[in-house]
Amino acid sequence: MSKVGGERKRTRRAAEDGTRASPRRDVLEREIYLHAARLFAERGVGATSLQDIAESVGMSRPALYHYFSSKDDLLSRLIAEHPKRSARELAAIRRRKDIGPAQKLREMVRALVMVIAEDPVRFRTLVTSEGQLTGELAAMHAKAKRTVLKEMQGVIEEGIDVGAFRHADARVSALGVLGMGNWSAWWLNADDPNSTAAIAEELSQMAVLAVSRTGAAPLEQGIPAAIRAIREDLDHLERQFSG
Amino acid sequence: MSKVGGERKRTRRAAEDGTRASPRRDVLEREIYLHAARLFAERGVGATSLQDIAESVGMSRPALYHYFSSKDDLLSRLIAEHPKRSARELAAIRRRKDIGPAQKLREMVRALVMVIAEDPVRFRTLVTSEGQLTGELAAMHAKAKRTVLKEMQGVIEEGIDVGAFRHADARVSALGVLGMGNWSAWWLNADDPNSTAAIAEELSQMAVLAVSRTGAAPLEQGIPAAIRAIREDLDHLERQFSG
Repeated sequence: MSKVGGERKRTRRAAEDGTRASPRRDVLEREIYLHAARLFAERGVGATSLQDIAESVGMSRPALYHYFSSKDDLLSRLIAEHPKRSARELAAIRRRKDIGPAQKLREMVRALVMVIAEDPVRFRTLVTSEGQLTGELAAMHAKAKRTVLKEMQGVIEEGIDVGAFRHADARVSALGVLGMGNWSAWWLNADDPNSTAAIAEELSQMAVLAVSRTGAAPLEQGIPAAIRAIREDLDHLERQFSG
Repeated sequence: MSKVGGERKRTRRAAEDGTRASPRRDVLEREIYLHAARLFAERGVGATSLQDIAESVGMSRPALYHYFSSKDDLLSRLIAEHPKRSARELAAIRRRKDIGPAQKLREMVRALVMVIAEDPVRFRTLVTSEGQLTGELAAMHAKAKRTVLKEMQGVIEEGIDVGAFRHADARVSALGVLGMGNWSAWWLNADDPNSTAAIAEELSQMAVLAVSRTGAAPLEQGIPAAIRAIREDLDHLERQFSG
């Protein structure tokens, strides 16, 4: 932490308030994060030095120390925010009273994908580096991951209880849905925000269908949709008899 | 490659035939793979030396050279087989004439998960190290990944064409399904084969439901299931009128 600790704390607090104390500092920090994430992903954390990161950004190593006290400090701050943010967002969605479990699950998948889409390389770094976390940071990270799983599993259990979702192992369902979302870090094109929103929408639709009782999904859209579903069922049945 | 190349080729060919020329060699290679995969996952490939791996296995570094000519050689063989095998299995399922797209998709997800379940740490190493592959190995790896995606996307397109799956972007659907399967490497318990089979089954069920037109999935299980689905639809409809 050393002498830059104080300023860093101020910057963090400012960022949490949604204000920007020092735009230039933020821009540079972000630049350093991007280069570090890329190097960590390409070479692994162990094989990347602060010197490598400084060279990649185009600054001196002493200048880099003004922003980060060590490689561990950089790694911590690079990856720590993501799971905490997802955990916070999922917990907030879970608590909503205005929507049912299907809509909650939809919102959760959308939230997960949109956070990943902001910086997929950073999320991949998180996944590839989590084995190297130690101490307090490892504990915090594990806790955030547990919260994400708990909130998603909770919504799925809620859906099973009210008869919207089919009976299945809610933990496995939640992990399956999380995988669908998390894996997007390996194929999303972060430079195309339009496609990102459409993809988040499609993945959230897949998630709801994957856990829903058959017929439950369209019925949520009202009685005409329900009648349409029955007609489709009957058409299929007719084809099976005549085929 | 050097002087061990010849023997290695023989071992490989034997393994492909399903026979085992030298059980002791295979056991030791497998032991080396396990230790290497764990070290690569914990420290990153760059920060792990052949010396570290030899120490972890409990053999000398010269003895290790009898099995692998370099760290790159070890890494290649550690991770190269997996995507090629998945690609092969998915291509074979795709070609089957006796089952429709829903059943094909089910078999594909099951195959993907069962291969991962054999050694989840190895699959995670593959994911975390693929950025470090170069040359021929990188090309081979990229090709196998493309095949996996192509075969799965192809089955989904097939399903859309015959009206079993809903109209959606088949590429996004395939990537979503692959994510559901691949992510299991981060949470499967490889020591529990019973739970693994049940999980593979559940994830393949989720995959089919995620892409199916509502009502299509149970109808594939025959006429009684179709009638049950219609009853469920009618129950829902009744509740909506009375509620």
